Amino acid sequence: MDANKGKGDQAMPNPGGQMGKPVGVPFMESVLPKAVKRRVHALKRLQEQCAHIEAKFYEEVHELERKYAALYQPLFDKRREVVTGAVEPTDEECEWHTDEDEEEELAEEVKEKATIEDAKKEEVTPEEDPKGIPDFWLTIFKSVDMLSDMVQEHDEPILKHLRDIQVKFSEPGQPMSFTLEFHFEPNGYFNNAVLTKVYKMKSEPEASDPFSFEGPEIIDCEGCQIDWHKGKDVTVKIIKKKQKHKGRGTVRTVTKQVPNDSFFNFFNPVKASPDGEMDEDSEFNLATDFEIGHFFRERIVPRAVLYFTGEALEDDESFEEEELEEGDEEEQDEEGDDDDEEGDTDPKKEQPQPAECKQQ
Amino acid sequence: MDANKGKGDQAMPNPGGQMGKPVGVPFMESVLPKAVKRRVHALKRLQEQCAHIEAKFYEEVHELERKYAALYQPLFDKRREVVTGAVEPTDEECEWHTDEDEEEELAEEVKEKATIEDAKKEEVTPEEDPKGIPDFWLTIFKSVDMLSDMVQEHDEPILKHLRDIQVKFSEPGQPMSFTLEFHFEPNGYFNNAVLTKVYKMKSEPEASDPFSFEGPEIIDCEGCQIDWHKGKDVTVKIIKKKQKHKGRGTVRTVTKQVPNDSFFNFFNPVKASPDGEMDEDSEFNLATDFEIGHFFRERIVPRAVLYFTGEALEDDESFEEEELEEGDEEEQDEEGDDDDEEGDTDPKKEQPQPAECKQQ
Repeated sequence: MDANKGKGDQAMPNPGGQMGKPVGVPFMESVLPKAVKRRVHALKRLQEQCAHIEAKFYEEVHELERKYAALYQPLFDKRREVVTGAVEPTDEECEWHTDEDEEEELAEEVKEKATIEDAKKEEVTPEEDPKGIPDFWLTIFKSVDMLSDMVQEHDEPILKHLRDIQVKFSEPGQPMSFTLEFHFEPNGYFNNAVLTKVYKMKSEPEASDPFSFEGPEIIDCEGCQIDWHKGKDVTVKIIKKKQKHKGRGTVRTVTKQVPNDSFFNFFNPVKASPDGEMDEDSEFNLATDFEIGHFFRERIVPRAVLYFTGEALEDDESFEEEELEEGDEEEQDEEGDDDDEEGDTDPKKEQPQPAECKQQ
Repeated sequence: MDANKGKGDQAMPNPGGQMGKPVGVPFMESVLPKAVKRRVHALKRLQEQCAHIEAKFYEEVHELERKYAALYQPLFDKRREVVTGAVEPTDEECEWHTDEDEEEELAEEVKEKATIEDAKKEEVTPEEDPKGIPDFWLTIFKSVDMLSDMVQEHDEPILKHLRDIQVKFSEPGQPMSFTLEFHFEPNGYFNNAVLTKVYKMKSEPEASDPFSFEGPEIIDCEGCQIDWHKGKDVTVKIIKKKQKHKGRGTVRTVTKQVPNDSFFNFFNPVKASPDGEMDEDSEFNLATDFEIGHFFRERIVPRAVLYFTGEALEDDESFEEEELEEGDEEEQDEEGDDDDEEGDTDPKKEQPQPAECKQQ
């Protein structure tokens, strides 16, 4: 590798002995001799066939994911039981040694800081035994930027009743999709035991642009009707408006129901327009929604406990932190921003390949 | 979605009624009541089991990739035959309609610019019929930044003899790996018909850090011995050095063989140190090498023609271009650099999941 050779002076493609072209302009087939161009077209036809084989590959991967979802499920069921307090894990099931050093370090740290405040702190620490792991999912929602952006204060007491989030894959032979199921315990807000959001996917190269195919993509989603108790719907708010009568000049106050920011708007998404004609805002909201659905499926549900403890957030930022330790904070910090946790879930950056390369 | 709620004022996790902590500090289990912490440890054990199931999943995906490699192979064989000129595709095989508009546009453009220079240009354009697609792989090497950084001027005449690049997957039951095979036609530089680079992979959570597991990763690589013809080895150069005899003061010229920048150093990589102790430069070089291996496997080999025509490069930069059309070129251009083709292959950004979400 020649470290001295920058991108600026890179040689440009020069096929068929043509003159070089300025940086940034993609090489165009049309400058090739006719006979060569013809052969390039033959390769493009082959490439198109590859895209269709690739689509079949991803369908099989989806099947494999369905198969493995069944293998994960007993572990996720156990997780739910521990979280809700339905089951108390045995001592053996709770053995966890690898972070002892960490805990000792932390204990040391706490000891150092806790001088005078010691007695006071002890008072505050709730040493009682609550049921299960209180606020398990709410804590996750509040820890992950992408979700905490959606969660409003009025959503929090409702999310305390969230018992589990599950991902269900479409059956074989059905159009490809996955469903997020949000399981709630009985609560004073709505009657539904489960709120659902279905994400419809497509694993098929588009005839008009077969080469952009990179694997299944979310193409649409569908929420569900929430059966709110009277006056408990946090997705709307009542505003009072003063109206002046044009003729008489009398003033009266009218109440009007308007949309309200809430996580629960997640279950009432914008509809994807079939002809692709949408205003920019709706497009942005829908793209964000797809990203969030993808994030629930790929990260939150499979590794919830790590988002609860913060370890998954640390992992996502590990580069940044490693570099920070070495010195020049500000510069590295800026670079690190590209690799942050939300960046990791940017679906545009994602590759459908199951391999990554990392140095041991 | 609340657009007004920035990341700055996001609520922090506050499990068990503890005080909020400053942004950036991950939530620590140790502040939880003992009984709850115990249950969190139970969840972490379950999570560890998930990582091992996930490892099996990726092994099955690898098998699936092997299966599909066999399905792609006839198409890649055909590609090689067309590229080398061994086979002339039929008219039907060369039909390619979708870019007609594009070509017409281009033809218009060319017509506009070509006024006086017309006759001159005609002369230069080689309308002869070369064999196959000349410089197919060399053009790709020179078009892709990650590769063009490695290719030196003295490598180019050698790379003109590259006929094909193939990816071979390890057999079932063998340790997971893939091999890049660079097939050369007989040439005046070396005797090897095939140069190989093996990338060894691991799909197994590390006992010390099971939660960082994200799928198979490259852990080591191995090159091959190139049997250079005498005086043709471009990976070394002879330098002349004048030496002065300490006592007598006479000067003599000695020749010394030193390493030389060359793409062919790719076949003589740094060895990964088994204990992880390496100097920074070697670590960087190895990480770059793994990235390049991964890029050959995932992008170059499966879609070579699109790198030849530049379409894959365009795809990688599509955001940039869309934005460029709207006006402020310079600013957008800079931003686009983060999304460029090399960024897409940054293995740290890659997710092992086969799904991406994109708006229709």
